[in-house]
Amino acid sequence: MPQSNPNPAFGAHLMAYAGIPSFMRLPVSRELDGVDVAILGVPYDSGAASWRSGTRFGPRQIRANSLQLWGYNRLLDVDPLAVLRAVDYGDVEVEPTSIAVTSERITAVTAEILATNTHVIALGGDHSITYSLLKAHAAHYGPLAVVHFDSHTDTYQRVGHLEHGTPFLLALEEGLIDKTAYVQVGIRGPMEEPTDLEDARGLGANVLTIEECFEMGMTAVNQHIHHLIGQRPTYVSLDIDAVDPAFAPGTGTPEVGGLSSFQILQLVRGLAGLKLVGFDLVEVSPPYDHADITSILAANLVFEFLSLLASARQKAVPHQ
Amino acid sequence: MPQSNPNPAFGAHLMAYAGIPSFMRLPVSRELDGVDVAILGVPYDSGAASWRSGTRFGPRQIRANSLQLWGYNRLLDVDPLAVLRAVDYGDVEVEPTSIAVTSERITAVTAEILATNTHVIALGGDHSITYSLLKAHAAHYGPLAVVHFDSHTDTYQRVGHLEHGTPFLLALEEGLIDKTAYVQVGIRGPMEEPTDLEDARGLGANVLTIEECFEMGMTAVNQHIHHLIGQRPTYVSLDIDAVDPAFAPGTGTPEVGGLSSFQILQLVRGLAGLKLVGFDLVEVSPPYDHADITSILAANLVFEFLSLLASARQKAVPHQ
Amino acid sequence: MPQSNPNPAFGAHLMAYAGIPSFMRLPVSRELDGVDVAILGVPYDSGAASWRSGTRFGPRQIRANSLQLWGYNRLLDVDPLAVLRAVDYGDVEVEPTSIAVTSERITAVTAEILATNTHVIALGGDHSITYSLLKAHAAHYGPLAVVHFDSHTDTYQRVGHLEHGTPFLLALEEGLIDKTAYVQVGIRGPMEEPTDLEDARGLGANVLTIEECFEMGMTAVNQHIHHLIGQRPTYVSLDIDAVDPAFAPGTGTPEVGGLSSFQILQLVRGLAGLKLVGFDLVEVSPPYDHADITSILAANLVFEFLSLLASARQKAVPHQ
Amino acid sequence: MPQSNPNPAFGAHLMAYAGIPSFMRLPVSRELDGVDVAILGVPYDSGAASWRSGTRFGPRQIRANSLQLWGYNRLLDVDPLAVLRAVDYGDVEVEPTSIAVTSERITAVTAEILATNTHVIALGGDHSITYSLLKAHAAHYGPLAVVHFDSHTDTYQRVGHLEHGTPFLLALEEGLIDKTAYVQVGIRGPMEEPTDLEDARGLGANVLTIEECFEMGMTAVNQHIHHLIGQRPTYVSLDIDAVDPAFAPGTGTPEVGGLSSFQILQLVRGLAGLKLVGFDLVEVSPPYDHADITSILAANLVFEFLSLLASARQKAVPHQ
Amino acid sequence: MPQSNPNPAFGAHLMAYAGIPSFMRLPVSRELDGVDVAILGVPYDSGAASWRSGTRFGPRQIRANSLQLWGYNRLLDVDPLAVLRAVDYGDVEVEPTSIAVTSERITAVTAEILATNTHVIALGGDHSITYSLLKAHAAHYGPLAVVHFDSHTDTYQRVGHLEHGTPFLLALEEGLIDKTAYVQVGIRGPMEEPTDLEDARGLGANVLTIEECFEMGMTAVNQHIHHLIGQRPTYVSLDIDAVDPAFAPGTGTPEVGGLSSFQILQLVRGLAGLKLVGFDLVEVSPPYDHADITSILAANLVFEFLSLLASARQKAVPHQ
Amino acid sequence: MPQSNPNPAFGAHLMAYAGIPSFMRLPVSRELDGVDVAILGVPYDSGAASWRSGTRFGPRQIRANSLQLWGYNRLLDVDPLAVLRAVDYGDVEVEPTSIAVTSERITAVTAEILATNTHVIALGGDHSITYSLLKAHAAHYGPLAVVHFDSHTDTYQRVGHLEHGTPFLLALEEGLIDKTAYVQVGIRGPMEEPTDLEDARGLGANVLTIEECFEMGMTAVNQHIHHLIGQRPTYVSLDIDAVDPAFAPGTGTPEVGGLSSFQILQLVRGLAGLKLVGFDLVEVSPPYDHADITSILAANLVFEFLSLLASARQKAVPHQ
Repeated sequence: MPQSNPNPAFGAHLMAYAGIPSFMRLPVSRELDGVDVAILGVPYDSGAASWRSGTRFGPRQIRANSLQLWGYNRLLDVDPLAVLRAVDYGDVEVEPTSIAVTSERITAVTAEILATNTHVIALGGDHSITYSLLKAHAAHYGPLAVVHFDSHTDTYQRVGHLEHGTPFLLALEEGLIDKTAYVQVGIRGPMEEPTDLEDARGLGANVLTIEECFEMGMTAVNQHIHHLIGQRPTYVSLDIDAVDPAFAPGTGTPEVGGLSSFQILQLVRGLAGLKLVGFDLVEVSPPYDHADITSILAANLVFEFLSLLASARQKAVPHQ
Repeated sequence: MPQSNPNPAFGAHLMAYAGIPSFMRLPVSRELDGVDVAILGVPYDSGAASWRSGTRFGPRQIRANSLQLWGYNRLLDVDPLAVLRAVDYGDVEVEPTSIAVTSERITAVTAEILATNTHVIALGGDHSITYSLLKAHAAHYGPLAVVHFDSHTDTYQRVGHLEHGTPFLLALEEGLIDKTAYVQVGIRGPMEEPTDLEDARGLGANVLTIEECFEMGMTAVNQHIHHLIGQRPTYVSLDIDAVDPAFAPGTGTPEVGGLSSFQILQLVRGLAGLKLVGFDLVEVSPPYDHADITSILAANLVFEFLSLLASARQKAVPHQ
Repeated sequence: MPQSNPNPAFGAHLMAYAGIPSFMRLPVSRELDGVDVAILGVPYDSGAASWRSGTRFGPRQIRANSLQLWGYNRLLDVDPLAVLRAVDYGDVEVEPTSIAVTSERITAVTAEILATNTHVIALGGDHSITYSLLKAHAAHYGPLAVVHFDSHTDTYQRVGHLEHGTPFLLALEEGLIDKTAYVQVGIRGPMEEPTDLEDARGLGANVLTIEECFEMGMTAVNQHIHHLIGQRPTYVSLDIDAVDPAFAPGTGTPEVGGLSSFQILQLVRGLAGLKLVGFDLVEVSPPYDHADITSILAANLVFEFLSLLASARQKAVPHQ
Repeated sequence: MPQSNPNPAFGAHLMAYAGIPSFMRLPVSRELDGVDVAILGVPYDSGAASWRSGTRFGPRQIRANSLQLWGYNRLLDVDPLAVLRAVDYGDVEVEPTSIAVTSERITAVTAEILATNTHVIALGGDHSITYSLLKAHAAHYGPLAVVHFDSHTDTYQRVGHLEHGTPFLLALEEGLIDKTAYVQVGIRGPMEEPTDLEDARGLGANVLTIEECFEMGMTAVNQHIHHLIGQRPTYVSLDIDAVDPAFAPGTGTPEVGGLSSFQILQLVRGLAGLKLVGFDLVEVSPPYDHADITSILAANLVFEFLSLLASARQKAVPHQ
Repeated sequence: MPQSNPNPAFGAHLMAYAGIPSFMRLPVSRELDGVDVAILGVPYDSGAASWRSGTRFGPRQIRANSLQLWGYNRLLDVDPLAVLRAVDYGDVEVEPTSIAVTSERITAVTAEILATNTHVIALGGDHSITYSLLKAHAAHYGPLAVVHFDSHTDTYQRVGHLEHGTPFLLALEEGLIDKTAYVQVGIRGPMEEPTDLEDARGLGANVLTIEECFEMGMTAVNQHIHHLIGQRPTYVSLDIDAVDPAFAPGTGTPEVGGLSSFQILQLVRGLAGLKLVGFDLVEVSPPYDHADITSILAANLVFEFLSLLASARQKAVPHQ
Repeated sequence: MPQSNPNPAFGAHLMAYAGIPSFMRLPVSRELDGVDVAILGVPYDSGAASWRSGTRFGPRQIRANSLQLWGYNRLLDVDPLAVLRAVDYGDVEVEPTSIAVTSERITAVTAEILATNTHVIALGGDHSITYSLLKAHAAHYGPLAVVHFDSHTDTYQRVGHLEHGTPFLLALEEGLIDKTAYVQVGIRGPMEEPTDLEDARGLGANVLTIEECFEMGMTAVNQHIHHLIGQRPTYVSLDIDAVDPAFAPGTGTPEVGGLSSFQILQLVRGLAGLKLVGFDLVEVSPPYDHADITSILAANLVFEFLSLLASARQKAVPHQ
């Protein structure tokens, strides 16, 4: 169990059921001096316009289930909290009745963090928040390469306005995403129109359907991503419904026929080597979870995000 | 089980687990010619700004659990679906990302129904919808007497804008409610400020706290309501969290120390004799319910609403 | 979301949480003039003699979870509700205390629908209903080829009388099934007797155990089915417990070590090209489900059934 | 914790979570020589024709939750398992597909037990089983006085045949019940027809509605029962839905506005002094329970049944 | 919502679903300089020797559900966090495999806090922890008057060693409790032996059974407590199973026939005027809770504890 | 369904929902004369020091879900209860407050059984119990070859004392395990230290990580085990968290990215041919399960254990 929190009240030495649940017992702080990465909760679920709400409890439950995580990533060979200085930045003050107000606040808080050269790992909340996160990141880094794990394209032109089915539509339309380096992984399920995939591709998405993923194998999917993106600054957005409902039932719009937990871990670890600058993990809906298995998976994936950042840092400073 | 639906596919003669769940198997229709009352769902939960979402599934689950209701109300001595012509009008097309758009649509649909001299029984959804319902009713009837069952005053001035803690604040400010005839029943719990009750009273609410209710007894509470309101046109708004979480766990902001199911039934039946013109039942959140006990209670309370309307009609036409 | 229901109260344009849940918002009707396919609920669970009941709520929950389905089937390249005229026929009036009465009613209603040259897709209910469905289909089409997805053979001679472990025993004994074209897919688990599989084969079943399925791969399983059945009129019976309990926990007799959701979708889609005339999906038990993942999978599989019918129709009228 | 089981493998000295769950660790046996009372499970739920199934798991879950019961009844001042010789007789072999077969088996097993002058405490299962139990008891004792706790009258003439809404209709029609000594306690909810209560009374039931119970108080209800029944041989049938769903959510047809757990305990204990000969506790449906609170209440009520029998025995042998 | 936390990352202004859940957003700190009261978690459940475990998650879940509490206590007319300086001290480092080690640590941490003249409000954990808490309090204050709300006496001499059925036995034996001022409220259920209550009384407990409480009424119970205890330094121990399982299902050894949530709130508020020095709230077991209703009740009761301390302080400094 | 229990009250002929749940309806007995194998429950969960408790209910729930198991193992071609004489020995009397007392009792009871040349299949309980089981087995057989299925190594030297993360550390240190024949299968997840695997290997474990298992395939894993162990007397310890949480959510420390139910069945069946002498299946935590899918899987795995023993017996007596 991680011991990076200097405040004994947080329970650095405690077991997972004890203590105040910040992410991996990180210090809860908004001081970013010298901080490499900030965990940021975005407990907003009114963007879930299509089916179930409940993701407003995602950040809290992911934090609670992060406490069982041990610190060393065997496969990436790194102890992220030993390499990186990290904080739990708490949550954005969202406004459930207005996506406009909420979106501005998300972008503002994110910009504030990025301005100190601290990376953000955002915990959703529904997928609409990614638009606001990308806005701040693009303002800081320019148009971004994006790796987008999802069962849905989230580029639905018929909807038009911002909700959880359109963050990438708006981000593409506003030039926040580098259209030559935007890959969608895991797309599946019935479509609204025959042209849905074509439309997504026309907007700039490099779409890998779940059938293509399973046929290629996870290693080839990662090679495809690396080949497409190269060393562009890259943002990772992971909608937990990319994973099959058996492994991630606690989500708002579950789509059957998806990835296993092992496969999503493979895919995320396989991003090592990209120039990763920002992350979000969205659509964890605790009221629909059981035994917290979705939040546990999410906490593990955030640990992989941290490990990817740490691994890049470690390689940049080989003699450390 | 009611048999008022002429479409056999709905399952007029079927048991509760069978058939398509319109409210009490009423015809699903937007034809209001000769119709006395319309059940109207408002599956909106983004107004739940303070705690849990999930009430968007309230209308569906209340309908499903209405199928077990038999038709004759023994205590009010009326068979409401024999006396009234009723339809299930379906749901308002809500917009989770915008309370402004949603509010307009609720008011518009309600106005459309009232224009045909049909009463509305609205199924929420969170309590913010009551403002929009009152707006349409006040436009039709003038300022209304209101009986408001709740654990919270929902007149929080510090919030200001429309959400589920302010429908009555806004309705009072806009003159939708007759301030001489607005009673709140069941208020309890910690307050945000010492002046919360004073503030509510200053705005026009006649507040009965839960302690006052329990001390007076339910019969006296009803006498108090009748005395205050008399024969003014009256709207009833019932937030299910007026009831204790033991009896109604499926709600967004449960408040311990509340009414039992028997007491809320007594209180609602006790409204017989008022000139009732509109109703809502809000804040049923199925993802937090178990064994549907909250939805079952809600369905029974809506049956009492129907019975109250029917009872008034029956008395108006004594020789029927 | 589908918009085929002409009654606006059903919520043609609404999101999945809103409106009255007929299957995919199809018209709820018993008018079959010009109708190609009828969705028929059979909410009967007293045939579940071996373990858990609860499938009487299967039809309702599958309908509710069908509302999130979009209309276009990407892999079969068809929009079934654009190609087919479909209705939700409601439910059979079952009698929980008597399988004899229930069976007769199922057969009668099914015969009534088939008589108008409308296909039936039945939603169970426990597996005993398949016998009664087959009876009506065989009366209309003659002995049928059958594709039977299941973890159990359901041909248990020791039981003898009709319940959910014997529909195929009785159907075979009564000549409702073409014994040269009856395939069972996914059989597994402990057996009651060493001769159980032999017995099933002796009765006419072409049994593929789960081990055989996994060794062959899903594509080969489908080739095997096509090879065996050819262009005989074919009935498909899908017991959701063919799928592993991780993917389909909401069922009465879960059997570990089964298919994934991706695999069952592959297998069902792979039936394209057969001459399919009837379908059932049985054994979904909502009281044992969580987050509705079993009902969501079931709704998707019914969508594939519809797509298979539509695809055949589309190919028959190539210039459409 | 009770220690009456001589077989150490049952865990006579173990805590509630350990050991094999026979009722209160009684010997599991069909030897009735010298036995005073037999606990008999009837895991049949196909009689639940109106709403939810699941009571087939009632006997098992009541047994499991009986293990926490301590042996001394403070209010009746008796240690029932020290006074009575009791066994857990196991379950009747029910047949879910046929109520006729099941009913015969229930009556036969019960008759077999009664023939040895052993009392039966039956654990349901749905309420239809009471008819079959009464049949055996009436054959042994003649027409019985009956105390019937329930929210429904279960004398619905429109149904006619045996299911869980008719056991008392049939028992009355067949003379199994002494019509001068049959009391129903707790009746409530909407009625199917205005004449439902009148009909029940016409058939012979002395009906106390829940409103009457609450107005009289529990002590007066018990006085009423004693006054009506006197020292006739009396059978007690307790449908757990007499209790409010807050206290007993795990049931098939919950009816809001009912008794509290304290009140049902008062009412059952208040039967002390009657000449009690048989008992059943029905309609506990574990799939709809949470935290086993319904089964725990049921186990406590069965403990009161045992205590009533023991108390009568103790008084009959005052010098023991 | 409380705003006493100076660290914006904790979310002083956030809604209940947002931010890091310390109790009522209090600062998480072990600096006690000038601090009046410390919330202390004791996530230990191995003392639950009799039935269900799970209370190790009690402190976390009570904290999470405290975030919805507003700050002003209307009935005690006090805003506790405005009157008192409070911190969330985090959790004791418990050792599930050893009650001896755990007990020492609880006593040590508590002594450490008391040494700074800070009051402790402990969140359990199972009831065994009260012994260790009383040990530290008695060392600081001398033998304590104790108000003990519970359904069980927890003075079981047959057990002997420390577990959740013996904290008061050991405390009485070791002189930690003032035997002239120890009251038990709510005792009920079957007893292990006829002498259980006598034994408890012999040890020094003034026992009020639930029947006595209901007969006297809550006001008289409080008068009894005040009369017995007067102005002795008093410790309050509240086992949530004093409350009926309908209102508090999430507990390890639920006992039917208990207090309602309204009654326990009355009883706790009625302690105002006693000289209260320490508190615990134990036996909340989140794995058995639903919709968090038990944790919500617990959080409200802890708020009453805080209010009682604040109220005493307020009265002591009347001109503040 | 098995019919080996001669006591009719157990329900030899009953369906899975009926009768008293001993494992597969085996006789509940401590008479071991001529008995080949004893099922032994160890309902202890205080060794679960790291996260969730609840495994104390594992033995009961595994027994309950074993009742659906049929008797013939198709893949191993054996009917274990026809070949072996087996009993359900009931549970060890554990002591939740003391792992020392509990450990001694486990070892003593196990030794008592082994002394009669009866094999033990132990049902946990948390993994700490394996140490105490191994102690008794090593005393009887000498140091044992061990096949250990798990996601964690459970050889954590930093912990030191006995709890569920150290049974194999202590067993290795005390020479209970043959270090040349100890294989761990399925290890994964973040590690506490970079050297964790090295440490385990240094202690004597032959570790197969989940990545190695998936790369090799299950057949090769079994070959590796057979090659390593040969014909040494072998103990099998199966921590259910070796399986992915999708297939086994009901466990205390779920680890994502694990085996499927099909794979664990393959691996266990693949042990046929080893000289197996003892077994345990641990860490099933029913409070975190849903639809009992974890307990069902566990019951199936215990059935495979029985089949492995029976298969060895059958082969030893080829002419039977």
